[in-house]
Amino acid sequence: MTGADILCETLLANGVDVCFANPGTSEMHFVAALDRQPRMRCVLGLFEGVVTGAADGYARMADKPAATLLHLGPGLANGLANLHNARRASSPVVNIVGEHASYHLAHDAPLTSDIEGLARPMSGWVRTIGSADNISGDAAQAITAARGAPGQVATLILPADAAWGEAQQDGIAVAAPARLAPVTEAKLNEAAQALRSGKRTMILLTGKALRDGALDTASRIAQFSGAALAAERMAGRIPRGAGRVAIERIPYKLESAVSFLREFEQLILIGAREPVAFFAYPGKPSRLVAPECKVMELAAPGDDLVQALENLAQALNLPTTLQPLRQERIDTGLPSGALNADAVHAVVARMMPEQAIVCDESITSGQNLLRITRGAAPHDYLPLTGGAIGLGLPMATGAAVACPGRKVISLQADGSGMYTLQALWTQAREQLDVVTIIFANRSYAILHGELKNVGAGEAGRNARRMLDLDDPAMNWVSLAEGMGVEAVRVATTEQLGAALQSALKRRGPMLIEAVI
Amino acid sequence: MTGADILCETLLANGVDVCFANPGTSEMHFVAALDRQPRMRCVLGLFEGVVTGAADGYARMADKPAATLLHLGPGLANGLANLHNARRASSPVVNIVGEHASYHLAHDAPLTSDIEGLARPMSGWVRTIGSADNISGDAAQAITAARGAPGQVATLILPADAAWGEAQQDGIAVAAPARLAPVTEAKLNEAAQALRSGKRTMILLTGKALRDGALDTASRIAQFSGAALAAERMAGRIPRGAGRVAIERIPYKLESAVSFLREFEQLILIGAREPVAFFAYPGKPSRLVAPECKVMELAAPGDDLVQALENLAQALNLPTTLQPLRQERIDTGLPSGALNADAVHAVVARMMPEQAIVCDESITSGQNLLRITRGAAPHDYLPLTGGAIGLGLPMATGAAVACPGRKVISLQADGSGMYTLQALWTQAREQLDVVTIIFANRSYAILHGELKNVGAGEAGRNARRMLDLDDPAMNWVSLAEGMGVEAVRVATTEQLGAALQSALKRRGPMLIEAVI
Repeated sequence: MTGADILCETLLANGVDVCFANPGTSEMHFVAALDRQPRMRCVLGLFEGVVTGAADGYARMADKPAATLLHLGPGLANGLANLHNARRASSPVVNIVGEHASYHLAHDAPLTSDIEGLARPMSGWVRTIGSADNISGDAAQAITAARGAPGQVATLILPADAAWGEAQQDGIAVAAPARLAPVTEAKLNEAAQALRSGKRTMILLTGKALRDGALDTASRIAQFSGAALAAERMAGRIPRGAGRVAIERIPYKLESAVSFLREFEQLILIGAREPVAFFAYPGKPSRLVAPECKVMELAAPGDDLVQALENLAQALNLPTTLQPLRQERIDTGLPSGALNADAVHAVVARMMPEQAIVCDESITSGQNLLRITRGAAPHDYLPLTGGAIGLGLPMATGAAVACPGRKVISLQADGSGMYTLQALWTQAREQLDVVTIIFANRSYAILHGELKNVGAGEAGRNARRMLDLDDPAMNWVSLAEGMGVEAVRVATTEQLGAALQSALKRRGPMLIEAVI
Repeated sequence: MTGADILCETLLANGVDVCFANPGTSEMHFVAALDRQPRMRCVLGLFEGVVTGAADGYARMADKPAATLLHLGPGLANGLANLHNARRASSPVVNIVGEHASYHLAHDAPLTSDIEGLARPMSGWVRTIGSADNISGDAAQAITAARGAPGQVATLILPADAAWGEAQQDGIAVAAPARLAPVTEAKLNEAAQALRSGKRTMILLTGKALRDGALDTASRIAQFSGAALAAERMAGRIPRGAGRVAIERIPYKLESAVSFLREFEQLILIGAREPVAFFAYPGKPSRLVAPECKVMELAAPGDDLVQALENLAQALNLPTTLQPLRQERIDTGLPSGALNADAVHAVVARMMPEQAIVCDESITSGQNLLRITRGAAPHDYLPLTGGAIGLGLPMATGAAVACPGRKVISLQADGSGMYTLQALWTQAREQLDVVTIIFANRSYAILHGELKNVGAGEAGRNARRMLDLDDPAMNWVSLAEGMGVEAVRVATTEQLGAALQSALKRRGPMLIEAVI
């Protein structure tokens, strides 16, 4: 077998059976190998940011990595921003990047660049394959690295001569299962003692601690101890809605986050990191907790978070009768009249089907999203984790590939949606069950706020030329239709309700431009 | 003044008066400074690949750098592919990337990443500013680095606290002029001797050696010595058309390039590098010249290429009566009937106005472009240099900003056009005089050819799913209109002729989707 065939077989043998791809010439032997192996589902993205963002969304919902396939350094570069988001979400991704044949590198051909150098900032693991005989072992190690706790981006660089070379032996290597470290007795005792202290305490969760069973345990601990629960901002997936344990997310805005955390004397981290300000501002803090707050880590990101919560429950000797506190269904009612962002959320909250997947890149328009959808039908919420805009549409694409039986609702700001709008084409090609709602405020609204924050007053001509998107206004209906996705523009809640109802009644992609 | 104001003043004082931008929160103090300084022209790109590709196109036509403004590591990452092309074109770019406040980095906030690490592979010069007091000196050095021969990407990283900090002194530093090294007598004698030897010789030119005056000298040398002239593939700008010195470009395809170079026993490099294969293929060479060909460098990329040609002409003692060989006007006539790529080129060649700027990312569709437009009206030709697709539309955008009095003709393959289609919006906003022709073959046609080359035969389902773009077909008319650019679809040469005539008669952007 060629190295390319072995790579394909190794991926499949280890459960990696989806490949989000945008290949080029140097990857053509691998494309030929994928062509010989119909078990691999190949999903084309028309830009690499779509490929990597889809791999992130897929991983968050499938709980296993997809492969990517990117073309040399520039193809990788185009995918880096969404790999950054995947890295912050601890999403497992087997990021395969083609490279020139090894002997060709010395010639510094036009497309040559330092691929390892480009990969490192956004990858937890990077390796360039030496030859066809190394491929299976290297690929298995990439898979091991990607899906090891808590999950990471593993970049595997595939030289063309390793792909086209015939391997001497055809063995397929097996990736190791994720090793989850148990928490220590000392940390357990520290956390249990803190929870018994009577001090105001927040438990900050992320990753696998934010799944139904673990959240139930966390809720019981919280009720028993009086602690509050919150989800880390970088958590990639949060179960929400009626019947689920209600959990807040640390707010984005510095002032709101500081206010949210101010009362707590103790913070217990379950796989999470201490929350910090998204951005620095003159004279304002980088840390968000009160200066005197004691921060303790019960479980590090790579630890067994689910077991850590179980152990903590045992250490606290929770009464078995104590039930988790579950969110009640809230009927938001349907607002009427002109649309604004909150009205969109209210319509979504009212109409959202059970087990929807809500992909959120609504940015400024999403300020009240979590509050308004709190009591909606149970759903999974997938946020922008690393702050690199352009994730929303690709993430929705990948989530839909992972969960073909579930409706994906993609809440998308217009400015960030423009970054990777090519994802709509993939949704059309794969007939993915995604309804996208564009919040068309025709502005980098968040930056107008930030400009005011720096004391610049009202934007003048140059600032408006950089922050406004209304000259010309983007026509998302045309853009979507250009990509093969049916679309409609709405300006009232009634129109939105009718459009959303139509989208929910059928399968396949649709886009709604909500002019707010 | 704040550091941000000083940066703005230093750019302006050194002739950098255009800023292609997509800022974020960490750049807001610099945005405020730009807002206070209306002499800086700020041009928004809705994706960073637009920003950097526009800076490349601007530099190629303006012969000076623009500034960019990018948001942190992910914003830089999104711009890297077109910085790669700029790097290969030796285009001067002052690439400004915002960074968190220096004290905030230790907290590894969600948007933190290794910006210097990301910048290095695509930059010739990288520096992170230390404080407001360093800004003017560092910015001047970035400008010096960018516009030093032969031109490069200089990445200046601007921490937010350096931008918002008040400088102790307000002096504005002056960038040094480019220092062009003269060629040595030894190299000059070697080249002159080679040209007198009677051996078959090619002179390979790039950069400033590809401007009218220098090309005239090169042509006289070629006629005198019997040498052939060619332009390096990575040359960013080639003057072409009637009245100009005709010059070939090294072909893209390996077999064509080898055949093009086979006869030559000597290759003289004027700022160019020895041509190498774009990609490696099993059993085929990486070098393109014949094995026995003697390669000699008269002038290195950083040398004074124009003077080198003058000196060579003197060393050869050219008769003053010897005139350059100029391309005659060729009227290609207008083909009729159904469109194909060559028919599009023929229509363009016939109708192209004087001093048009032709931006070429037509890829497979452009195989015969240079032959067909050889005798068109005089124009400048701006190719894809580094092979990172997604340059065409942004490059046309930047070229139009640099040359408001000239028509830009943007010849764009559909697959690569999808990478950075957001550039159309900037063309609409700035009312740039660009006519884009999309070669809608609805396929990564080049890769279908490459797949055949690797012996995989006809594409099966997985390969077709990765190489075909026809399911669904993209509707470029809708996409352009969604971005605010008027558009029309044509399927015959007559329709194309009428559409192009209409586009040429007016100013402002227009897109023609040519279904081929």
